[in-house]
Amino acid sequence: MSETTVAALAALVGGRVIGDGERRIAGIGDLRTAGPDRIGFVRNPSYAAVAATTGAGAVLLAESLTTPASQIVVADVDVAFAKVALHFHPLPQARVHEVHATAVVHAEAGLEPPVAVGPRAVLGRCRVGAGSVVMAGAVLGDGVVLGRDCVVHPNATLYPGVRLGDRVVLHAGAVVGSDGFGYVREGSTWLKVPQLGSVVLEDDVEIGAGTAIDRATIGLTRIGARTKIDNLCHIAHNCVLGTDCALAAGVMIAGSTSIGDRCVLGGAVGIGGHLKLVADVRVGGASVVLKDLLQAGEYMGHPVMEKLAWLRTMHGLHDFLAMREQFVEQRRADRKSDG
Amino acid sequence: MSETTVAALAALVGGRVIGDGERRIAGIGDLRTAGPDRIGFVRNPSYAAVAATTGAGAVLLAESLTTPASQIVVADVDVAFAKVALHFHPLPQARVHEVHATAVVHAEAGLEPPVAVGPRAVLGRCRVGAGSVVMAGAVLGDGVVLGRDCVVHPNATLYPGVRLGDRVVLHAGAVVGSDGFGYVREGSTWLKVPQLGSVVLEDDVEIGAGTAIDRATIGLTRIGARTKIDNLCHIAHNCVLGTDCALAAGVMIAGSTSIGDRCVLGGAVGIGGHLKLVADVRVGGASVVLKDLLQAGEYMGHPVMEKLAWLRTMHGLHDFLAMREQFVEQRRADRKSDG
Amino acid sequence: MSETTVAALAALVGGRVIGDGERRIAGIGDLRTAGPDRIGFVRNPSYAAVAATTGAGAVLLAESLTTPASQIVVADVDVAFAKVALHFHPLPQARVHEVHATAVVHAEAGLEPPVAVGPRAVLGRCRVGAGSVVMAGAVLGDGVVLGRDCVVHPNATLYPGVRLGDRVVLHAGAVVGSDGFGYVREGSTWLKVPQLGSVVLEDDVEIGAGTAIDRATIGLTRIGARTKIDNLCHIAHNCVLGTDCALAAGVMIAGSTSIGDRCVLGGAVGIGGHLKLVADVRVGGASVVLKDLLQAGEYMGHPVMEKLAWLRTMHGLHDFLAMREQFVEQRRADRKSDG
Repeated sequence: MSETTVAALAALVGGRVIGDGERRIAGIGDLRTAGPDRIGFVRNPSYAAVAATTGAGAVLLAESLTTPASQIVVADVDVAFAKVALHFHPLPQARVHEVHATAVVHAEAGLEPPVAVGPRAVLGRCRVGAGSVVMAGAVLGDGVVLGRDCVVHPNATLYPGVRLGDRVVLHAGAVVGSDGFGYVREGSTWLKVPQLGSVVLEDDVEIGAGTAIDRATIGLTRIGARTKIDNLCHIAHNCVLGTDCALAAGVMIAGSTSIGDRCVLGGAVGIGGHLKLVADVRVGGASVVLKDLLQAGEYMGHPVMEKLAWLRTMHGLHDFLAMREQFVEQRRADRKSDG
Repeated sequence: MSETTVAALAALVGGRVIGDGERRIAGIGDLRTAGPDRIGFVRNPSYAAVAATTGAGAVLLAESLTTPASQIVVADVDVAFAKVALHFHPLPQARVHEVHATAVVHAEAGLEPPVAVGPRAVLGRCRVGAGSVVMAGAVLGDGVVLGRDCVVHPNATLYPGVRLGDRVVLHAGAVVGSDGFGYVREGSTWLKVPQLGSVVLEDDVEIGAGTAIDRATIGLTRIGARTKIDNLCHIAHNCVLGTDCALAAGVMIAGSTSIGDRCVLGGAVGIGGHLKLVADVRVGGASVVLKDLLQAGEYMGHPVMEKLAWLRTMHGLHDFLAMREQFVEQRRADRKSDG
Repeated sequence: MSETTVAALAALVGGRVIGDGERRIAGIGDLRTAGPDRIGFVRNPSYAAVAATTGAGAVLLAESLTTPASQIVVADVDVAFAKVALHFHPLPQARVHEVHATAVVHAEAGLEPPVAVGPRAVLGRCRVGAGSVVMAGAVLGDGVVLGRDCVVHPNATLYPGVRLGDRVVLHAGAVVGSDGFGYVREGSTWLKVPQLGSVVLEDDVEIGAGTAIDRATIGLTRIGARTKIDNLCHIAHNCVLGTDCALAAGVMIAGSTSIGDRCVLGGAVGIGGHLKLVADVRVGGASVVLKDLLQAGEYMGHPVMEKLAWLRTMHGLHDFLAMREQFVEQRRADRKSDG
């Protein structure tokens, strides 16, 4: 939130200043409406006209243009924007140790100051690192470990024994460490298999609202460092996800599947159990993976093919009814000539 | 819940009374079991025999028939039933100002009496309109605005700054205003893009249990008036939904997509990002939309086609294996004759 | 959690002891690392080498082999393992009556001791059977009934009037009894149909994290005894599920559908409304059911076919582009010869 100069922002993003570097900037703005203490951005050339008449004090862009604003020329506007936005809007972090009077904290919980615990949060015999924020109504079971600078949003639940690295973020209603879906058939019914393992979320993982990550039957369900998971995803027991992955909303991964580093799964992708996806696999939205994917690349479909083949196949389906008509007619003609 | 007469109910639903309009009715009942102070309904002719011997005091129906009950003849039985049911079972509404002793309400929160706040609810520096009900364990962040007669069910979470119109209903565990899934690649990893915008739910919106609606990156995610969203849906950042839409459970909409008025999305529909659906589009359950839909109409499939074409294509798929067999044989024969 | 002997465990699982039956066992272990008070298991022959040198005191297996551990030979290792694990890790159960000081319990709630109520739980005018555990932040509305030995995990919500049998488990964030998605069109907008029914979960049902089960419009939504439902599923109003079913994560079932006993639905399966699935139907992951399934068996696809036909059809799709090319060429040639 702290005011700074154009030159300081340019240094932050590794950009080059054109114009006045000493202008003071206090926040992000829209080029069409912003005042002189705001910085906006130009992502594509069609905004050049807007930039030409903007009242903003500064603008982030990839190529200089005519504007009254100070310019910061950068290689990647999106990356630079993220860094500037994080400067003015840093993630929540505890700076003062403050446990709300209505929070229920176990006498043997270990809170490394400063930690912020919100109203009605319930902390069992857990450990919470410095800088972490546990918001209203969140529940941390016994044996939970949070690293430094974690953020647990309202009404999220961490089952006993779950371990988080540093700077892990859980959004509202997320659940980590619920029982894996483990049953064995005995006769015509189901016998529960106790789920004795746990979950580890490594550093810088972010988990979306309502997402559920189950504990392992034995051992660990593990989410690799810097992997980001969107809302309403399900990660079943014993899954192991690599680092730097991104899973859009509604992804469902069945048990014991492993996913390599830097994989990107589109929204509502479903992945079967006991499968292996190597690193750098990208699966398009709403696709279904029912076999191992052992080559990096782009996949799509239900079940998945290589993306291009699927797109062409689906396009070709528009001819399918005509093809079938011809086939049916031909078959009829063949039968006639047989008779 | 208030007892009334057959004639008054007929006036409420714009129906015509046959028989005694002065009978007193105290609630809804099943024609097979109801007593004389209950009203039932006949939706299709096969219930005529039941109506003929019912003990209920009144019956809603589209065409009069022989029955000891007073009859209310209406154009649309479903609409009339909904109105009668709402008369006897109105939505929750605060009539007395009552903040439970265990609720945590910020000193600067603005509650316009009467408001009902349940046990353990947490209200930040927010504003809540008259008649609204905030149930147990719900969390309203700073800057949240609720209009009049809103209902927030237990353990729902509203992130800071989210704004609701009048008569908005959020079911249990719903999350509104969580961070959009915004990251940019920097090298091989992800840099978070702070999500600085907010969410607006206009008048008479209803949001199902566990549904998550993300705040915009900049600007607003907006749900139009009277749009109804079922359980476990995901609406990503910057989406704009029109008015009078209905989204069944499990719908997932990726970022920056806009949906026109009166659209109906079946259960588990997936819609890609940055797309436009015009007004009056209907998408069948479990379909996947990966392109703009710029004509009103019915669509279905993965990816969607016009509904009729998709149904015929899927039906035709039953012949596909025979077609392929013929193709493979033909190709084999061709090769032979080439050789 | 209680220490016991190899012989006692063998009796528990109906197994035959080879070696010392008097060894004392205190818990489950991994054969590679466990000490002499642990029992491990061998699921497949490749573990024979591990068993030959294990330090564990006992091992569960299907056929005896050479090992220093005492052996318990059983017909089904998975079933035996589940029973042994449940012995050492029984499900949560209240043994001492204990209501946390911060729980909010209605004066007329009926708790049959012993019941354990966690911090910040909110219990309306409900009834809770002996042995049940209601964890932190859970909310039980008025009229809720829990049988004996139920477990309600943190931040789960039971709407008023919902009834649970004995030994029902609800995981964190689950919602039972939310309004069904019932609206009728009146002109261009939606009129809410009040949802006056309720939900019954019969004995031994388990419900996953974040799963939502809606109350019926009138009457009951019902989940049969011993049916297990994974995370983030949606069961709409008026559905009736049989006994001994298993629904993997993300299953979505639209309104008024009935499912027979012992059905197994894979992850992310979608089922339309007003359908009937008979007993012993198995539907593969990510499949979509849009018609009645009136024969027991295995189904798969979008929409479903018999599983084998679908697998063969999807495999054949790899030839589709070549088939279409031939078709297009043929059509071109035909046109030429016509002209």
